[in-house]
Amino acid sequence: MDHAPAASPARKPKKLRSDMGWSDPHSITVQGLDLCTDILGHLNLGDFAFLEIKGRRPDARESQVFNALLGTLVEHGMTPMVIAARLTYLGAPESLQGAVAAGILGMGTTFAGTAEGSARLLQEAIRPETTMEHLPALAEDIVARHRASRTAIPGIGHPLHKPIDPRTPVLFNLAEANGLSGRYVALMKLVAQAAERALGKPGQLPVNATGAIGALSSELDIPWRLCRGLAVIGRTIGIVGHLAEELRNPIGREVWERTEDESSEHNRT
Amino acid sequence: MDHAPAASPARKPKKLRSDMGWSDPHSITVQGLDLCTDILGHLNLGDFAFLEIKGRRPDARESQVFNALLGTLVEHGMTPMVIAARLTYLGAPESLQGAVAAGILGMGTTFAGTAEGSARLLQEAIRPETTMEHLPALAEDIVARHRASRTAIPGIGHPLHKPIDPRTPVLFNLAEANGLSGRYVALMKLVAQAAERALGKPGQLPVNATGAIGALSSELDIPWRLCRGLAVIGRTIGIVGHLAEELRNPIGREVWERTEDESSEHNRT
Amino acid sequence: MDHAPAASPARKPKKLRSDMGWSDPHSITVQGLDLCTDILGHLNLGDFAFLEIKGRRPDARESQVFNALLGTLVEHGMTPMVIAARLTYLGAPESLQGAVAAGILGMGTTFAGTAEGSARLLQEAIRPETTMEHLPALAEDIVARHRASRTAIPGIGHPLHKPIDPRTPVLFNLAEANGLSGRYVALMKLVAQAAERALGKPGQLPVNATGAIGALSSELDIPWRLCRGLAVIGRTIGIVGHLAEELRNPIGREVWERTEDESSEHNRT
Amino acid sequence: MDHAPAASPARKPKKLRSDMGWSDPHSITVQGLDLCTDILGHLNLGDFAFLEIKGRRPDARESQVFNALLGTLVEHGMTPMVIAARLTYLGAPESLQGAVAAGILGMGTTFAGTAEGSARLLQEAIRPETTMEHLPALAEDIVARHRASRTAIPGIGHPLHKPIDPRTPVLFNLAEANGLSGRYVALMKLVAQAAERALGKPGQLPVNATGAIGALSSELDIPWRLCRGLAVIGRTIGIVGHLAEELRNPIGREVWERTEDESSEHNRT
Repeated sequence: MDHAPAASPARKPKKLRSDMGWSDPHSITVQGLDLCTDILGHLNLGDFAFLEIKGRRPDARESQVFNALLGTLVEHGMTPMVIAARLTYLGAPESLQGAVAAGILGMGTTFAGTAEGSARLLQEAIRPETTMEHLPALAEDIVARHRASRTAIPGIGHPLHKPIDPRTPVLFNLAEANGLSGRYVALMKLVAQAAERALGKPGQLPVNATGAIGALSSELDIPWRLCRGLAVIGRTIGIVGHLAEELRNPIGREVWERTEDESSEHNRT
Repeated sequence: MDHAPAASPARKPKKLRSDMGWSDPHSITVQGLDLCTDILGHLNLGDFAFLEIKGRRPDARESQVFNALLGTLVEHGMTPMVIAARLTYLGAPESLQGAVAAGILGMGTTFAGTAEGSARLLQEAIRPETTMEHLPALAEDIVARHRASRTAIPGIGHPLHKPIDPRTPVLFNLAEANGLSGRYVALMKLVAQAAERALGKPGQLPVNATGAIGALSSELDIPWRLCRGLAVIGRTIGIVGHLAEELRNPIGREVWERTEDESSEHNRT
Repeated sequence: MDHAPAASPARKPKKLRSDMGWSDPHSITVQGLDLCTDILGHLNLGDFAFLEIKGRRPDARESQVFNALLGTLVEHGMTPMVIAARLTYLGAPESLQGAVAAGILGMGTTFAGTAEGSARLLQEAIRPETTMEHLPALAEDIVARHRASRTAIPGIGHPLHKPIDPRTPVLFNLAEANGLSGRYVALMKLVAQAAERALGKPGQLPVNATGAIGALSSELDIPWRLCRGLAVIGRTIGIVGHLAEELRNPIGREVWERTEDESSEHNRT
Repeated sequence: MDHAPAASPARKPKKLRSDMGWSDPHSITVQGLDLCTDILGHLNLGDFAFLEIKGRRPDARESQVFNALLGTLVEHGMTPMVIAARLTYLGAPESLQGAVAAGILGMGTTFAGTAEGSARLLQEAIRPETTMEHLPALAEDIVARHRASRTAIPGIGHPLHKPIDPRTPVLFNLAEANGLSGRYVALMKLVAQAAERALGKPGQLPVNATGAIGALSSELDIPWRLCRGLAVIGRTIGIVGHLAEELRNPIGREVWERTEDESSEHNRT
């Protein structure tokens, strides 16, 4: 049995409490705001996501940066996730929610882990008292630790986008223009530079989009454990987009038939 | 074996093609737009969802209506879906994507089916040649058919929000103000009135939020089969919000322990 | 808000109760049996599934039929479900449960609906008082109703397995040999014969494996709403088997790369 | 974009190949066996799972141990997973596969990680050349490493089942009686003894059921990465059992209503 350690007569019940939303016959309250008068028509979808996660509305600057951050995560072409979603839709077209769920289940360490990883790296390195002067030493230390344990540094380098990931300067410029480029962005850049020096690969290990997302999430004070949730929000939109295309021009059946035919070919000869 | 009907030597391969997104080393293209110069910093998250689903950017009016429509779907308080997500997070905190997936899997006929149902009702009733004059008769016919088959009409009535669902006038007013209140909105309103007359329940079967969403999706020319996808997008944001609260103030373990204790109590005495 | 209709001060709480399993420090009880002395080493996995679903151990005859029934559902080659599971595993190898979940989410109406459908057909037709003499007329009626509504009859015909589905006689013979071939099996056979006559397709619409499963589930008094659960049990084993092969000889990445390359090819020229 | 590192013109296609199953009009082959003549009526469900994972039929001794091992994983009472499944079923009763998927998504590190963890511990410690004489030193080393890194040793101790987990002697005796108790079982026992000595907790850290499962999986030469798959197989059966009970005596709605009411109570006063 999987036991709740406290599943005993002596267990003290804890009060259940949530402040996300509630309603009465005439109104709906979300995080203390009136859905009908304060939110609908006033907050765009990215602002609403900010409200849900942070418990308050974003200001105009946070809104622009957060919408861009989430936008980076929406559409990544024909990924394994969207192929899985299309194949699942083929089997259960009446349960579109299942196809979307199948798609987001592929957002594990291989694809979604790096934004989480870079946010964690930055949030564990920077303390309340950390100042800009401390950052170069922190960057050197991060690179040294990863070299010692022979692990990749999350957030730098990209197999295709060389010498730079074109999304990174856009995100960093938006942060800068909106007063949201602070210690986390600075440290992420310093880590990339230190890694290039340490590994003798000048211009080859720039901050990639997931590193930029990790840095911006940190500037917005979002815990690294929730970064994967931001990725899930973005990708859910992308998966629904792919299912809209699958409705118009299906490819799931063709991918299935080809794979089935070829993989069992050796049994037919 | 589950066989592709055409899994035979004679099967003609179909070309795989997608226009959602692709990239080269220096740029990323999404639906024909440059992600870095056209989208990030320009489109909010709701606009991006519109682009993904419709293949083009919304204009300012469509943007306002579509963001409000999605916003209606984000936060519905402590639903079975968010409780399931919180319980799943308790078991697999390292796989936040799994907790979100568990949450959206509850979006079946009970909760998400009615927006889909009302959109379907409207889209199957209105033909290209249908004019405003045809609508009253269509409404009467819809009500009569549902009475004959003793099925509920999707999109009208609400167990709590009486006499009106406060979200409906907000959404319909936004549609009106933005020139997006046409035949579908008109038919939805007429169906509610016809149902109240036919069932002798004046003022008791107003258009509810899911009816409004079905009507607005139809005005935006979104196929009813995708309406559940809009709900999934909204709820995914809400589920991530609940997981953010679960991180700060967990209730999953308490719900589990109470349920386990009480449900097996009769075996302990 | 998604409201529980009874979410009001006047709501009467219902006692939570379950008889599936519970434990104390020294023993674990499952459905009234002692896990350690009555089950482990005594019941095989199919018998345990029977116990879970029916609340009692199968006898030797039920055991043989039920294990065969579940066995029919385990391995169907390279289906869309197992391809989706393999693609999901590529993205989240640390969360094997997510890859299995993605696989079973494809078990909707397209693939898993027909066993459920044939069980429903039979269980809704046969009443406690129905005798063998009533069955031919019931079969004719079923065929006539499906022809009138132009819907396919679940459980008959197969795109590949012609003139017979080789699994059907095996399952029906096992049922016969074990005294479990009664009215449901008889009606399923009669439906196939009536359909062949009515459509003028002699020898072309035999009972397929899903029809046999629907009939045998009904003989075992399993509600049709649970038939999809039997399919999920079988396929889960098959999906884990495919993931075991994916660990030894991965194909997920190759399927992804080919699909991505070809589907965006037109953008590169 | 998530790029396949090799998604380039120079990519060499890899042949897709699977040996799990295939069919022709007259027969179905699973792992080289004929489904209709070799499997149905001959292999029980646990044996079929063995065939799927190992690529060959179990002998009688392996069959008994493997069926018991899987049986240990089926029913654990009212866990968070089955509550999540019941809540999901409430929202989407037409998609039972989604409710099962929601349930297994909770099988992460908290509950399913320890069988995997103990199997990994044993499989990484024991090399082909390791003999029984090496085991005591390996056990001491394992305990010392976990104490140094202040991490729990997977597979020992239990919050409820004290001083022993009643499942462990049953599984170990079955392994012994069937000639499958070798180095892995021996090392697991030695680890528990060494931990009790090192921590000064005699009789308090016995091998628990997950430790026994990790050891027996290793004796059966199943890679630790697949152990979570065994747990998923067992739990899927248990979840379907709970959904069968939910159909007869639903508790999902009551759990939802109570949780919703109490968690938003502070907003109503």
